[in-house]
Amino acid sequence: MTEEKMKRAEDLVEASKTCIFANTDENGKPQAKAFLKTKANGLKEIWICTNTSSKRAAQVKKNPESAMYFYNEDTFEGLMLSGQAEIIYDDEKRREFWLDSMRMYYPLGPTDPDYALLRFTATRGNFYCNLTNEDFDVE
Amino acid sequence: MTEEKMKRAEDLVEASKTCIFANTDENGKPQAKAFLKTKANGLKEIWICTNTSSKRAAQVKKNPESAMYFYNEDTFEGLMLSGQAEIIYDDEKRREFWLDSMRMYYPLGPTDPDYALLRFTATRGNFYCNLTNEDFDVE
Repeated sequence: MTEEKMKRAEDLVEASKTCIFANTDENGKPQAKAFLKTKANGLKEIWICTNTSSKRAAQVKKNPESAMYFYNEDTFEGLMLSGQAEIIYDDEKRREFWLDSMRMYYPLGPTDPDYALLRFTATRGNFYCNLTNEDFDVE
Repeated sequence: MTEEKMKRAEDLVEASKTCIFANTDENGKPQAKAFLKTKANGLKEIWICTNTSSKRAAQVKKNPESAMYFYNEDTFEGLMLSGQAEIIYDDEKRREFWLDSMRMYYPLGPTDPDYALLRFTATRGNFYCNLTNEDFDVE
């Protein structure tokens, strides 16, 4: 992918408040759900917050294969990142990503056992822009 | 699901310009892509336009299990419909959904062999609103 296109893909992730997490359930059936994007390190690593008790966390533990999708309805740009997800309880990260508004989801605060982080690591990408699709490696 | 909640889910689909189509590729890996919503009949049937030559069409022919996802970033409402997709070339439908602006994708017009319709039929739904998730049957 050209440097200019890569920059556009990174800008799309940067500008996105939310991302769509796609995976499969215990029967291999496709799942999709929007999450607030907690943090993105380029295209390689995306962090979101979830719940230990959630269906998604259980599914990811069983099958980490997943995708993160970002798009802009106005420019028709769409970026699918393919890779693996894992559930993480690192206390430093949980504190780093903590916001007071999260207390309604995790009443016990940053160390609430139900406060789980999902780290998605991309290996491949597909970027749709200017009416064409391009596959690329994410390094 | 209560009648009021069902109405909110239908309103979300109705108001959405786009939808996220989630499926799996030939290796069972999760895929996600935004499409313009061509037509929705309640929550039961969603139509989108695609290309015969596209990866998505090939994947759907091999494995119809899929999901359609709709969400509103401002209200935090999210609706996942689970069901099956099929590729359809019904000429009446292709004419019904035709717009002149589609000629850039299908130069031969409404009977272009690359102009394929994807019909998604939902059997189950999951609606997230007011911070809670609810599963339901789609009849």
